[in-house]
Amino acid sequence: MLKELLTPEIVQLIRERQWTDMRDALIIWPPAEVADLIASIDEPTRVLLLRFLPRYYEAEVFAELTPGLQNDLLTELTNREVRGLLSELSPDDRTALIDEMPAEVTRRLLGLLSPEDLAETRQLLGYPEGSVGRVMTPSFVDIRADMTAAEALERIREQGSESETVNVVYVVDADGKLLDEVSLRHLVLAPPEKKVEFIMDDSFVSLSGYSDQEEAVAVIRKYNYLALPIVDSAGVLIGIVTIDDLMDVAESEVTEDFQKMGAVSARVGGDGPIESVKEAAVSILFRSRIGWLVLLVLVNILSGFEMSFFTHTIETTVALVFFLPLLVGSGGNAGSQSATLLVRALATGNVKTADAWRMIVKELSVSALLGLTMSFAVGGLAFYRGGAKVGIVVMVTMVLIVTASSLLGLLLPFILKRFGKDPATASAPLVASIADISGILIYFSIASWVIG
Amino acid sequence: MLKELLTPEIVQLIRERQWTDMRDALIIWPPAEVADLIASIDEPTRVLLLRFLPRYYEAEVFAELTPGLQNDLLTELTNREVRGLLSELSPDDRTALIDEMPAEVTRRLLGLLSPEDLAETRQLLGYPEGSVGRVMTPSFVDIRADMTAAEALERIREQGSESETVNVVYVVDADGKLLDEVSLRHLVLAPPEKKVEFIMDDSFVSLSGYSDQEEAVAVIRKYNYLALPIVDSAGVLIGIVTIDDLMDVAESEVTEDFQKMGAVSARVGGDGPIESVKEAAVSILFRSRIGWLVLLVLVNILSGFEMSFFTHTIETTVALVFFLPLLVGSGGNAGSQSATLLVRALATGNVKTADAWRMIVKELSVSALLGLTMSFAVGGLAFYRGGAKVGIVVMVTMVLIVTASSLLGLLLPFILKRFGKDPATASAPLVASIADISGILIYFSIASWVIG
Repeated sequence: MLKELLTPEIVQLIRERQWTDMRDALIIWPPAEVADLIASIDEPTRVLLLRFLPRYYEAEVFAELTPGLQNDLLTELTNREVRGLLSELSPDDRTALIDEMPAEVTRRLLGLLSPEDLAETRQLLGYPEGSVGRVMTPSFVDIRADMTAAEALERIREQGSESETVNVVYVVDADGKLLDEVSLRHLVLAPPEKKVEFIMDDSFVSLSGYSDQEEAVAVIRKYNYLALPIVDSAGVLIGIVTIDDLMDVAESEVTEDFQKMGAVSARVGGDGPIESVKEAAVSILFRSRIGWLVLLVLVNILSGFEMSFFTHTIETTVALVFFLPLLVGSGGNAGSQSATLLVRALATGNVKTADAWRMIVKELSVSALLGLTMSFAVGGLAFYRGGAKVGIVVMVTMVLIVTASSLLGLLLPFILKRFGKDPATASAPLVASIADISGILIYFSIASWVIG
Repeated sequence: MLKELLTPEIVQLIRERQWTDMRDALIIWPPAEVADLIASIDEPTRVLLLRFLPRYYEAEVFAELTPGLQNDLLTELTNREVRGLLSELSPDDRTALIDEMPAEVTRRLLGLLSPEDLAETRQLLGYPEGSVGRVMTPSFVDIRADMTAAEALERIREQGSESETVNVVYVVDADGKLLDEVSLRHLVLAPPEKKVEFIMDDSFVSLSGYSDQEEAVAVIRKYNYLALPIVDSAGVLIGIVTIDDLMDVAESEVTEDFQKMGAVSARVGGDGPIESVKEAAVSILFRSRIGWLVLLVLVNILSGFEMSFFTHTIETTVALVFFLPLLVGSGGNAGSQSATLLVRALATGNVKTADAWRMIVKELSVSALLGLTMSFAVGGLAFYRGGAKVGIVVMVTMVLIVTASSLLGLLLPFILKRFGKDPATASAPLVASIADISGILIYFSIASWVIG
C-alpha cells in the first residue's frame, strides 16, 4: 500500500524540514493516510505538518483524526488558524467535532464560527443524540422536475463542488418539498433534452432529522442507497446523510452491542461505546466495567445463599461439589450461546419478537440434544468418581441445566426487547450468572432427592 | 414506509389475481421490499408473482431473497425461466447464487448459463472462498487518459447501463492496465474539453482478486470509497467490488465475530456464520454449538479434578463452598469483559499486537481497582457468614481472581492473533472456563494456607 512505501521518505522530508516537498508528496495521499501519519509522529511536528498542508486538504485530514488528537492540535493552533480550519470543514464534520470536544473547547470553537456556520451548527446540534439530524449535512444538490437532464447537470456543475455528494440529487418543488431522488447515473445516461420528471421513478425513502441513526443504517443497507434525504415535518428537504457517515454509525453500534454482550456499560463518559480501548483512561475503563461486575456479585451471592440450604447434602457427599463447576459452567456456556445467537439475529432483523414461539420450540429441541450429548460425555466420569447415585444425579442434572439455561439465554433478549430495552443487555456474564442460580437449585434438589 | 402502506392493497390484488395491476403497483418498489413481500406470502403465489414481474426487475428481486427461498423458487421455475433469470442477474449476484445453492442445484444452474456467462462464473468461482474475487463484478466503465471529460461521459453513456456502478470509472492504458480512478462527480464538474489525464489525481487503491474480503472492507471504510478496483498480477483491471456488497460482507463478518464470541462455531454447514438463526435447521444449530460445549466440559472437568485435591479443606470448612460460585463467577465476568473489549478493538484496528505491553499495564491497574472494589463489596458478607478467616480468604481471593482473569481475557486474544488465529475465538465461555481453573486453584490454595 501507498503508505508503507512512502512513509519513510515523508518522515525523512519532515526530519529535514523540507515542508514544501513534503506537502507536494502528501497531497496525493488519501486524507485518512495523512491522519495516520500525524498520529504516529511527535507533537511539535504534528502541528507544523498540519500548518503546511493546503487549507481544504488540512480540513479533510483533520476530520479523520481521533477526538483526542483533534483536541491536542486545537490547543496548539491560533484562533486565526482554527477559524480557517472550521470554515473549511464540511458541516457534518464540523458538528461532529464541536460535539466531541470538551465543553471549554466547544465554547472556543463556537466563538470562532462565522455567523452562518454558527446558525447551521446550532441547528444540527439541536437534534437529539443518536438522531439522524446529528450526522446529516445541509450540503446537497436540488433540481426541479421541469429541468432537462442537461440543465440538471448544469446545476450540478454549479452547486456540486460544495455538496457532500452528487451521486444522488434531489428533485424539489417551489417550496423545497422533496418530490423524488434521481441518481447522477440516470441523469448522465439520459438523453440531454429529457425532462427530469420523466427520469423520476417516484421511488424514494426519506427520514426525519429526529429518526434514529440505526433506522437510517437499516434503510441504506436494505435498499443499497448511497445517501438518504432528510425532510422536516412539511416534507421539505433539509439535509442528507451519506453512506460513509452511516458506516461509521453502524460500526459504532456494533461496538456498542459487543461491549454490552461482554457486560461493559456502553455509555460511560460519553454518548456512545468506548471507541478507543487503547486511548481510554483507566478511570473510564473502570467505570464502564464496575457497574455490571458489582451487580453480578449480588446475583452470585444469591447462588451461595441458595447452596447453604443444602449444607447437609454437601457434607454427606462432598463428591457432589467436584461436579459443581462443570454443571453450572456448562449451563452458563449453553446459555451464552443461545443469547449470542439471538441478540445478533434481533440486531440484524433476522428474528423478530413475533418469532418468539417458533424460536422457543426450536431451542427446546436443540438444547435437549445438546444436554443429552453432554450428559453422556460426562456420565462415565461421574459414575467412576462418585458412584451410581452421583452418576445419575450428574447426568440428569446436565440435561436439565443445559435446557433451562439455553431457554433462559433465548428468552432474556426477547423479554428485554419486548419491554423496549436493548436485547444486547442479555450479556454472556448476565446469562451465565442467572443460569448459575437455577443450575445450583436443580443440581442440589435432585441430589438431595436421590441421595436423601 | 412505502411497504406498510401498500402491502394490504398488493395482497388484495394478488388474491384477486389482478397480476398486471399488481405488477404496475410493484415495479416502483425497491426490489428489497418485493423480496420481503415474497417471503411473506404462500408458496404457489410466490412463483406466480415472480413470473409476472418484468424480467430485469425479477432478477433484482431474486437477488435480494434468502438462499433458502431462492432454492425453493428455482425448483418451481422451468429451465427456460431459470435461463432467463440467470442471464438478467448481475455477474456478482449470479456467482453468489450459484455459490450458495446445494450441489445438484449448482449443476443445473451451470448447465443453463450462456457460454460467456459460464466462463465468467467459472472464473469468479475460481477465487478462494472469502476472497475479493468471489464478490467482484467484471461490469465497470473504463476510460482512457487522453479522452476529454465530454468523451469520457459519452463512453459512460454507452457502457454505463451494463455497469454495476458509474459513480467511479477507471482510467486504463492500451493493455487494460489500471492507471487511476476518476469519480463521475469530477467528470461532470470538469469543463467538457478538459482531458482526463488532468482530472486524474494519481491516487487510488487497488486489490488483487485473491485479497481477503475483510481487507477490502477495511480499505473502503478507511478511505470512504464507493467501489474498489481489482487487478491481476500485471496490474490489469479485471473487476470492481462495490460498497453495497462489501457492507454485506462486513455484516456477515460481524455476525461471525459475535457467534465466535458466544462459543458458536461460525463455519458449520457452510462457508460462513449462521446468517439466519430463524431458518437454520435444528441439526445445524446443534452442530454449531456442541463442539465448544463438549470441549469446555473437558476444561470444566479439570476444575472438578483440581478441587478433589482440596477435599480435606472443603470438609473442614463447608462455608468455603458457598463463596465458590461468587468468586469464580466474578473472575469469569471480569475476564469476559476484558476479552470482549480487546477482541472488538483488534477487529476495528484500534489496538494492534504491538500495543500488547501497553494494554497489559493498563489492564493491571484497571483490574486491580475492580478486584479491590468487589472485594469490599463482598467482604462484610464473607466475615458475617464465614468468620474472620473465611472473610480474609474471600477478600484476598477476589482481588487475585479478578486481576488474573482480566489479564487472561486480555492475553488470550493477543496470543491467538499472534499465532494467526482469530482473536474472537477467545469467547466469553472459553475465558470464563479457563478462569475457573485458575480461580479454584487460587481460592483453595489461599484457604488451605490461611485455615490450615
